[in-house]
Amino acid sequence: MSSNSYTVEELAGRLDAKVYGDAKTVVSRIAPLESAGPGDLTFYSPTQRRGLREVAERLRSSRALAVIVAAPLAELTLTQISVPHPLRAVASLAELFKPAPRLDHGVHPTAVVSSSAQLGAQVAIGAFAVIGEDVQIGDRTVVHPHVVVYAGVKIGKSCVIHSGAVIREYVELGDDCLIQNGVVLGGDGFGYFSDKEEGHARIPHIGNVVLEDRVDIGANSTVDRAMLGTTRIGRSSKIDNIVMIGHNTKIGERTLVCGHTGISGSCDIGSDVILAGGVGVADHVRIGDNVRAAARAGITGDIEANRVVAGHPPVDVGLWRRQVMALRKLPGLLRELRQGSPLGTAKESGESIDDELSTEN
Amino acid sequence: MSSNSYTVEELAGRLDAKVYGDAKTVVSRIAPLESAGPGDLTFYSPTQRRGLREVAERLRSSRALAVIVAAPLAELTLTQISVPHPLRAVASLAELFKPAPRLDHGVHPTAVVSSSAQLGAQVAIGAFAVIGEDVQIGDRTVVHPHVVVYAGVKIGKSCVIHSGAVIREYVELGDDCLIQNGVVLGGDGFGYFSDKEEGHARIPHIGNVVLEDRVDIGANSTVDRAMLGTTRIGRSSKIDNIVMIGHNTKIGERTLVCGHTGISGSCDIGSDVILAGGVGVADHVRIGDNVRAAARAGITGDIEANRVVAGHPPVDVGLWRRQVMALRKLPGLLRELRQGSPLGTAKESGESIDDELSTEN
Amino acid sequence: MSSNSYTVEELAGRLDAKVYGDAKTVVSRIAPLESAGPGDLTFYSPTQRRGLREVAERLRSSRALAVIVAAPLAELTLTQISVPHPLRAVASLAELFKPAPRLDHGVHPTAVVSSSAQLGAQVAIGAFAVIGEDVQIGDRTVVHPHVVVYAGVKIGKSCVIHSGAVIREYVELGDDCLIQNGVVLGGDGFGYFSDKEEGHARIPHIGNVVLEDRVDIGANSTVDRAMLGTTRIGRSSKIDNIVMIGHNTKIGERTLVCGHTGISGSCDIGSDVILAGGVGVADHVRIGDNVRAAARAGITGDIEANRVVAGHPPVDVGLWRRQVMALRKLPGLLRELRQGSPLGTAKESGESIDDELSTEN
Repeated sequence: MSSNSYTVEELAGRLDAKVYGDAKTVVSRIAPLESAGPGDLTFYSPTQRRGLREVAERLRSSRALAVIVAAPLAELTLTQISVPHPLRAVASLAELFKPAPRLDHGVHPTAVVSSSAQLGAQVAIGAFAVIGEDVQIGDRTVVHPHVVVYAGVKIGKSCVIHSGAVIREYVELGDDCLIQNGVVLGGDGFGYFSDKEEGHARIPHIGNVVLEDRVDIGANSTVDRAMLGTTRIGRSSKIDNIVMIGHNTKIGERTLVCGHTGISGSCDIGSDVILAGGVGVADHVRIGDNVRAAARAGITGDIEANRVVAGHPPVDVGLWRRQVMALRKLPGLLRELRQGSPLGTAKESGESIDDELSTEN
Repeated sequence: MSSNSYTVEELAGRLDAKVYGDAKTVVSRIAPLESAGPGDLTFYSPTQRRGLREVAERLRSSRALAVIVAAPLAELTLTQISVPHPLRAVASLAELFKPAPRLDHGVHPTAVVSSSAQLGAQVAIGAFAVIGEDVQIGDRTVVHPHVVVYAGVKIGKSCVIHSGAVIREYVELGDDCLIQNGVVLGGDGFGYFSDKEEGHARIPHIGNVVLEDRVDIGANSTVDRAMLGTTRIGRSSKIDNIVMIGHNTKIGERTLVCGHTGISGSCDIGSDVILAGGVGVADHVRIGDNVRAAARAGITGDIEANRVVAGHPPVDVGLWRRQVMALRKLPGLLRELRQGSPLGTAKESGESIDDELSTEN
Repeated sequence: MSSNSYTVEELAGRLDAKVYGDAKTVVSRIAPLESAGPGDLTFYSPTQRRGLREVAERLRSSRALAVIVAAPLAELTLTQISVPHPLRAVASLAELFKPAPRLDHGVHPTAVVSSSAQLGAQVAIGAFAVIGEDVQIGDRTVVHPHVVVYAGVKIGKSCVIHSGAVIREYVELGDDCLIQNGVVLGGDGFGYFSDKEEGHARIPHIGNVVLEDRVDIGANSTVDRAMLGTTRIGRSSKIDNIVMIGHNTKIGERTLVCGHTGISGSCDIGSDVILAGGVGVADHVRIGDNVRAAARAGITGDIEANRVVAGHPPVDVGLWRRQVMALRKLPGLLRELRQGSPLGTAKESGESIDDELSTEN
């Protein structure tokens, strides 16, 4: 629970870093520049949107005792730790200061584990977890309390599955996957055929979901099982919170999918793709490698590799910007044309949609 | 866990179908055409977006042993099963090959079931399920592990409630409903009145949620309870994942609501409506029967029956398409007018929103 | 389970209200005007979108026995209860008629509570709840069945945490917070740095989440923990269902965030802000006090206090309306220019995006 303290010397030793200033300085917390207080270690990463001069000024007025920087700044009284990649250094030190609570190895006495399940070495199974028949769990994997693992699931080594996640039948996870709370892997896909009697008849989904190694899934996201075959997410791809991935969709490697994005069924998304927040992808769409889609893009058709798109339907991001700017001028253009052109009879007014708008908040 | 094998003859018998080719062929898996391998049964449904010629070619080069088709194709060496509706046939056969694990009847010893709860015949209650006071559960309903059913709930016959779903007080489900993992039925609606002291004071929600027969709810979707009265979803309506349905809203029969759609409170949605993915509906909106809203439509006012709409605010889909195409031309139009018309003084540039965009990914 | 009955006199006494008509009338349910039946108490709040004349007519034809109104209406036979704020009166009476089931005080025998946890007076801990090490829970707080509270969490007094919610390590809640089912507080933020070997390397998140007093969080919403420092939601702010709030974001007091809204990381949202349904906010954005964003606004940059915005990127709501109306006229404008102007060579047609649209439903 309590934070731990370290000398700058100790920390620099772990980072193989150079120290400028008093290496005996003791720090007990890592904090961002904005909120760093007395006794803190802070950092400046060149990727942050802030000029070097502003940072130096803030550091001079800060009560932090030490700072991690890429290159030492002049005229600072606080101790500086210089590393090639400050953010990486912070990542490697963070848990020294405030370790996340760890589950003890072994099976909690309240967990219900099928006798046919196979657990690797140093596996931790938390309170009230349910591990179904024929489940395989690899070495060092941590299953937090209140995780439900249906029958036939395979989970690799060194995975962490957080409380409230559910892993449905026959789903497979590679090694080192991180599944946040409330995730549903392998829910039945949204598949029906029209039926005179019932309206919509269910199509059974007997496929599964496969997450390759190092896939992360954010809180309350869902990945539906395939009808037949597999819904697959490739190695090192990272999925944010409240994302939906539909049945039979494939996602390549190292692809990032941000919050509230919805990918319909049977899509084929490439590797190194970035889908920003709130993107929607229609079903059966193919997106090539290295595509970047701006927030809220509505992707209704295939996108070739390496394109950067925005809008709905999507266009190249440059065109989208020009459209946005042009649209802002359109009301004025219509007014001018009405006054001095053959279009003068067209009416232009925003009043008629007032009623619609009034219901929006 | 393991898949089962069948002769084509056996399968055709179940389907009452004609066989062309070797009826003794043994198949052990159903797979889509793209991934069918040795020993597989595959299928071709005319609803798939692919020409008959392409399909025949793929089938000739496929290592599948048999195929389900609407009408037999010429010059195929694999065995063909001919049925009027191939997808329906696949649906009826799928679970023969890979049965979903079934929960045994009876109450798991770890479940907490109120003594006042009434359970029908052949009900299954999984590990750690909590069944509150006065709950009624109909015959053959399956309640998976880790489902919480609050007091006063009524669940019909032959329902399946998956792990992690929560059914709040007084909610009612008809027969044959399918509730995926993480669904919340009957959370308190988002209702406050403004209050000088507290800012926003809560309005207690004493109404409930009613799902009629054959309603399906996708993973991590939420249906809020009414403040007074009932939030209702009609017979055979199907709700996809991560959908929110607000307090006091009514949805008719056989309506489909796709993923990430949000329907605000007090709406009245008709029957046979389709709301595609990511649609938003403002509160108190009425949508008539047979309306179709394209993905991401923002429905801010009432929509008459049978309309097909898109956009935000919504317009008829044809107009939306024309708007989209016209907008693509707008930057060029402005440029031309600037060069050769009285509008020549207007500036047109996308640069000024660069900063905004840079924060989107 | 059953509803309770009261005389109008009793109810008016609790409200300190005037009665017009028969005060001995007995009512057993509160119902909205649309569905009020025999024996019901109904109400009319001037905030409802309906004229006084229409209401009076409906009341005359209603079978309700009594009505709560702001000012008594003439020529009504049913009993009237007159109060300054009818909706507030309904809120204060609602649970008399249909009390929500209450959890008994004490710890359910199946719950797993760490010996180092500190529980206040009259705390209720439901079945299968898990309370981690060093957790503090204030007086009268109710933790429903199947809630998981990780180590080091502090929860104030009189909170209600519904089944299926998860509160991660070191998260802090003030007094009187209401957490709906399936909420995840403190999931790891979506933070990676690029790494040659792994593609994306995780940045540990050692910060936390703080909810101040009277914060409500809707079903299946997620609030991510800060990387360092705190993700904070201010006093009396109310968050609807399926909302995502990113790591390190701050939200002020009394702010309302409606369903399906996504707020990225490191944002600074003011007090008394309203973000309507489906709004998206890019990372590092600052939104001033009293800003109102219409449904589906895509907020890509800072917004000054008191503005009312709509659209993506956002513009003042008046301009947005004019843009929408102008866009509807744009296809016609292009047609006219093509026919009678130097722009006559431009083609205008919606056909070419048909294919894209066809995949949307």
